[in-house]
Amino acid sequence: MGLDQLAVRPHERLAAYLADGMAAVNVLIRERMASEHAPRIPEVTAHLVEAGGKRLRPMLTLAAADLCGYDGPYHIHLAATVEFIHTATLLHDDVVDESAQRRGRPTANLLWDNKSSVLVGDYLFSRAFQLMVETGSLRVLDILSNASATIAEGEVLQLTAAQDLRTDEAIYLQVVRGKTAALFSAATEVGGVIAGAPEEQVRALFDYGDALGIAFQIVDDLLDYSGDVTATGKNVGDDFRERKLTLPVIKAVAKSDAEERAFWSRTIEKGRQQEGDLEHAMALLRRHGALEATRAEALAWAAKAKAALELLPAHEVRDMLRDIADYVVARIS
Amino acid sequence: MGLDQLAVRPHERLAAYLADGMAAVNVLIRERMASEHAPRIPEVTAHLVEAGGKRLRPMLTLAAADLCGYDGPYHIHLAATVEFIHTATLLHDDVVDESAQRRGRPTANLLWDNKSSVLVGDYLFSRAFQLMVETGSLRVLDILSNASATIAEGEVLQLTAAQDLRTDEAIYLQVVRGKTAALFSAATEVGGVIAGAPEEQVRALFDYGDALGIAFQIVDDLLDYSGDVTATGKNVGDDFRERKLTLPVIKAVAKSDAEERAFWSRTIEKGRQQEGDLEHAMALLRRHGALEATRAEALAWAAKAKAALELLPAHEVRDMLRDIADYVVARIS
Repeated sequence: MGLDQLAVRPHERLAAYLADGMAAVNVLIRERMASEHAPRIPEVTAHLVEAGGKRLRPMLTLAAADLCGYDGPYHIHLAATVEFIHTATLLHDDVVDESAQRRGRPTANLLWDNKSSVLVGDYLFSRAFQLMVETGSLRVLDILSNASATIAEGEVLQLTAAQDLRTDEAIYLQVVRGKTAALFSAATEVGGVIAGAPEEQVRALFDYGDALGIAFQIVDDLLDYSGDVTATGKNVGDDFRERKLTLPVIKAVAKSDAEERAFWSRTIEKGRQQEGDLEHAMALLRRHGALEATRAEALAWAAKAKAALELLPAHEVRDMLRDIADYVVARIS
Repeated sequence: MGLDQLAVRPHERLAAYLADGMAAVNVLIRERMASEHAPRIPEVTAHLVEAGGKRLRPMLTLAAADLCGYDGPYHIHLAATVEFIHTATLLHDDVVDESAQRRGRPTANLLWDNKSSVLVGDYLFSRAFQLMVETGSLRVLDILSNASATIAEGEVLQLTAAQDLRTDEAIYLQVVRGKTAALFSAATEVGGVIAGAPEEQVRALFDYGDALGIAFQIVDDLLDYSGDVTATGKNVGDDFRERKLTLPVIKAVAKSDAEERAFWSRTIEKGRQQEGDLEHAMALLRRHGALEATRAEALAWAAKAKAALELLPAHEVRDMLRDIADYVVARIS
């Protein structure tokens, strides 16, 4: 939080640097989310697309292409593709999670209905697919189709893994790649591919997006147990109450004795929670150093993201990407 | 129904003719619906894929490729792609329609939950997309991404159009293309494209699939008002009770006077149905010749499908495709 006051946030600096490209991406998004026949589609999509997310994912694509010296038109298509895939998954997630709010506004499934969220999500996914076909790059199509499969697989895995104490760190990582990192890494990788960057750089861009996405999600999961509600907008213990097995708990479960395990089984697996359980859970997390270990892991992934950037050309965009990696973990540093 | 007893049904003859190819398609489907990490995926998918639909869509792709002399491996990928897209849309449709039964078995959303149906549908859609990327044909990707967008758009359109008396025959056709014809026409078209058939033949394959799909859906909508429950498995008037504005009603509404229009508005738009309404609806359909006009339209689309085949090489597969077009309308002939 200190960093916020120090200077303009790094993703805002990147947004300013990429302003022309992002304006073109926004035009393309608005053009392609239209539907001649079904006015419900732009209604639902506009609700979400205009809600003013940070557009971090499409920015990563433009940044990667810029960093690798691309001067063609297709990074715009790819950035819009990435945002459409992201928006489609948000629509479907809200149905799956039965959410009522997203970005401080009522969700589409609440304003319209689950049907509209499912079908408009499918429409956006198809539109994303059309946009990538227009780039004419089979390699880009391969990367984004693999990312889509990883996203869907991770989400299904989460359905069964989130309340199962056998879920270990490897499964957690798989879920996190599905939820967050797969689209981050595809976003950066396709920027390099469309620019025709050397393999080593393409790989480095993938690694940066992957590590950044993982760090991002671990920080989110950590703040749920250690955050300041005014800074995060989340109440401490939301994940616990919703019985989500995240990294801090996985680490504590791994070190638990029989009595502790019975506690986790009752509260997370069976969901029979009572007064005082959150406090006891927090005590167990502290007893086993689970919060500290989780924090160290987030920092390690952020360091990995920055290390990957070393393989890319020196460039002011590279510096901003490095600052973004620092910023993601600044809230826990 | 007479035709059923006359001889082996034409789609069964086609299945026998394409047996080797369909066996390869089934192997590929089973292989690709697996998930190393999320066992819920093959559970849900197997429930639907093994339920024994007719597999008409993948057969159309193999038939089109065979008819155009293809001898490569990728028609198998495309047939599996088409079946995956179909299965994904069924999973999502059952969530949208809150269905409890499909092909005489409980639906996946009932056996598992809506979440699994949404996310496994997304997974299958991604897997479909990976399969087509493997063919290396950008044209095939273009056709199938456009078909996917038409399907999703048609489904969204149906949400708003089905209970709106302003829905005319043009909108009905758009909905029907989304529900049925877009995947039929893409299935036949990509078979020709992968075989490198001349443009005229590719266009004819598209036209055949499009007209066949439309005929198929119109027959279904007609039988809902005129069918024999033992032959169709549907009760007369299901669409009326579910307030679905299908072609027979659209034709009757177009010829309605003020009093009739008020009746349709009350029963379909407002859903305030009472004893005797179905009988009155049937009387209005007869008064305006709506069933007869709908029947004529289905026959015209079947004839159009057969006419398209004339542009294709003489071949026993072509004869079977012609018989399938006849078979689709045999129940109303």
